[in-house]
Amino acid sequence: MSSEVESKCRAAADAARELSNVSAAAKNIALNAMGEALLKSAKVILDANSVDISAADKKGMSKTLIDRLALDGKRIQSMAEGLSVVAKLPDPIGEVISEFKRPNGLKIKKIRVPLGVIGIIYEARPNVTVDSAALCLKAGNAVVLRGGSDAINSNIAIAKTISSGAYSAGIPEGSIQLIEDTRRETAEEFMRMRQYIDVLIPRGGAGLIKSIVENSRIPTIETGEGNCHAYVESTADLKMASDIVFNAKVSRPSVCNAIETLLVDEKIAAKFFPIILNRLEQAGVEIRGDKRTRDIYPAAKSATEQDWATEFLALIIAVKVVSGVDEAIEHINRYSTKHSETIVTGDKKAAEKFTSRIDSAAVYVNASTRFTDGGEFGFGAEIGISTQKLHARGPMGLNELTSYKYVVQGSGQVREK
Amino acid sequence: MSSEVESKCRAAADAARELSNVSAAAKNIALNAMGEALLKSAKVILDANSVDISAADKKGMSKTLIDRLALDGKRIQSMAEGLSVVAKLPDPIGEVISEFKRPNGLKIKKIRVPLGVIGIIYEARPNVTVDSAALCLKAGNAVVLRGGSDAINSNIAIAKTISSGAYSAGIPEGSIQLIEDTRRETAEEFMRMRQYIDVLIPRGGAGLIKSIVENSRIPTIETGEGNCHAYVESTADLKMASDIVFNAKVSRPSVCNAIETLLVDEKIAAKFFPIILNRLEQAGVEIRGDKRTRDIYPAAKSATEQDWATEFLALIIAVKVVSGVDEAIEHINRYSTKHSETIVTGDKKAAEKFTSRIDSAAVYVNASTRFTDGGEFGFGAEIGISTQKLHARGPMGLNELTSYKYVVQGSGQVREK
Repeated sequence: MSSEVESKCRAAADAARELSNVSAAAKNIALNAMGEALLKSAKVILDANSVDISAADKKGMSKTLIDRLALDGKRIQSMAEGLSVVAKLPDPIGEVISEFKRPNGLKIKKIRVPLGVIGIIYEARPNVTVDSAALCLKAGNAVVLRGGSDAINSNIAIAKTISSGAYSAGIPEGSIQLIEDTRRETAEEFMRMRQYIDVLIPRGGAGLIKSIVENSRIPTIETGEGNCHAYVESTADLKMASDIVFNAKVSRPSVCNAIETLLVDEKIAAKFFPIILNRLEQAGVEIRGDKRTRDIYPAAKSATEQDWATEFLALIIAVKVVSGVDEAIEHINRYSTKHSETIVTGDKKAAEKFTSRIDSAAVYVNASTRFTDGGEFGFGAEIGISTQKLHARGPMGLNELTSYKYVVQGSGQVREK
Repeated sequence: MSSEVESKCRAAADAARELSNVSAAAKNIALNAMGEALLKSAKVILDANSVDISAADKKGMSKTLIDRLALDGKRIQSMAEGLSVVAKLPDPIGEVISEFKRPNGLKIKKIRVPLGVIGIIYEARPNVTVDSAALCLKAGNAVVLRGGSDAINSNIAIAKTISSGAYSAGIPEGSIQLIEDTRRETAEEFMRMRQYIDVLIPRGGAGLIKSIVENSRIPTIETGEGNCHAYVESTADLKMASDIVFNAKVSRPSVCNAIETLLVDEKIAAKFFPIILNRLEQAGVEIRGDKRTRDIYPAAKSATEQDWATEFLALIIAVKVVSGVDEAIEHINRYSTKHSETIVTGDKKAAEKFTSRIDSAAVYVNASTRFTDGGEFGFGAEIGISTQKLHARGPMGLNELTSYKYVVQGSGQVREK
């Protein structure tokens, strides 16, 4: 007898073959039907959610985490609206990416197709269940979802609701699967389902991503770890620099596109530090500086080697004085997770050097790193931000959930050798 | 002290950062210099090769395998010519793939960049050392090569020659690395060098690919396993069908784009089998048929379940009668390795159904599967044929050895929430 994991993965693979040929119109109708189903089943979902919340309370889960887990009418409404946003996005499938004719008369078309089956492993936020399913479905992929145990009752109720909504609107049955057994062994089993799952996307913290990279036999896209940097170059407009650094650190410190380290050119450090470090401290940010920073700004704590490599995800910033753009680049390429970095500068040459030499998914000149986001890039939605270079880099929208195939039209051509 | 594997991978990663900014002109000069170095060191390389050949002889290696391993003046000449072909290809790096402006004024460019460091694991053919290094270098990537033990003396001589040639022409030292210790443990160590290697590409048989998929912690591109099919539909021009099937099976049976299974529509099987199966048998092909095939063509052996799933890479063909395009599609999607398939048909609707429903990298109408090849597709060269859907599918040329990054030009933009 096959396990829950295997039978659900296989069912998704069977459904994927049908789903890849479903029209854009049919997928959009289904997405809207899924949203309506969510609104109609709001009570069932909220009841299930309250079971999760009670269990979390009993376990002593922190307020912040409980807030991520909790649903209410407004959040369900917003999940339903998210579905209609995805319905309105252009369908990527069937696009002729390129087309060429060979001297022997073969006509080759490179056509965008779904990836097939996408596995998503995520933690406690139940809205991930909805938006992952929506994006995968829109790009013609079946999805197997494996959420964390803390949200399991909510996830079961949501998955049941949206999959019934989708199937009643004609989406092939089996296209949306949720693994209900949340023991660690089933996650590991899931990561080995290579014959059914085409790509695995973890949506969660560094620990989850590391475990998947270590254990997965399925091609994986690493997402979301962001040890991001701002470098304020000697010719920077210091008011602009202060606004960018402050925004990148303080506007939402718990997200991956917030900065963790500030590098400042030695020529302006004495002038810039009082402006920015006071402003950050007043906003509650803890400053951890290298020796030269502390010489200028003695209120700073001492930064350790470990601090340069840490994604704080909190109101903490590591600060270092550098001799110029070369040292800034060297520091960033050494410690960065290759997510997002920015230079604030008035010097075109320094900007060019920075953007060409920094090896990160998104490299900014005179703007906040906080813009690394599918919505802000105009992709309409995102399933995550890739920090690897294979397949997709940076914000991943619908196109990044697709592959392609070559369709070759001949008239009897054979190859000589 | 770090091992050979680790120190070479780290050196490649250091070199890769420099290499990513080397100009097209400098890379092309280096590729030509590598070719000249090969010709100049021909004697040293041939001497090293003869050591490998003697060892292979002593081991009792088969003639075919020794032929793959053996070098002579002509083969070295042809490796040098391959380098000058790669030098002439357009440089993919720096291409602006797309460019867009956001309502807030941010200008976003998606720019093609190298992947970084590419690991190649391969078997006995020493020419792979040259052409892998050339393609990786042209696309701005450092490369770490790990060839099989049978060719180790040849590989050391070749790698030394081409890397000296490249470095003397200004390529950053360390860009081309060969792991000289060919024990199994070092291969496994290599597959874990995730912090230095961005992608691992196996070039070899199914066994090698399976071992890498099982053991690698580095993103991998599966290449080259080809259980390919031809389906002759009821409206096919039987002369064309015979030529295509014969070409796809017989012209070079040991390669991945040769077919292994022939599916024939029941309406034409009685007419087509005598034509094609006699022709194949006369060329030395062993026919393994299902019951309906054997009823029409009693000389066929009996095909087993295993035969449908086998990449014979030899003059053997499995043959099955099917009821129409639906059964053909079902059979192929079940047994295929998703490499290349062809339909021979006069019916546009059948062709459309086949090309849209078959989930393989290259799907042909009225042409031989043997065209799935970087050169035949006009890519100028190829590093392998991907049978997975992540990152690259089908023939992989220079573009498939690249990633991209987003360069975002602002004027002080910050994000509201």
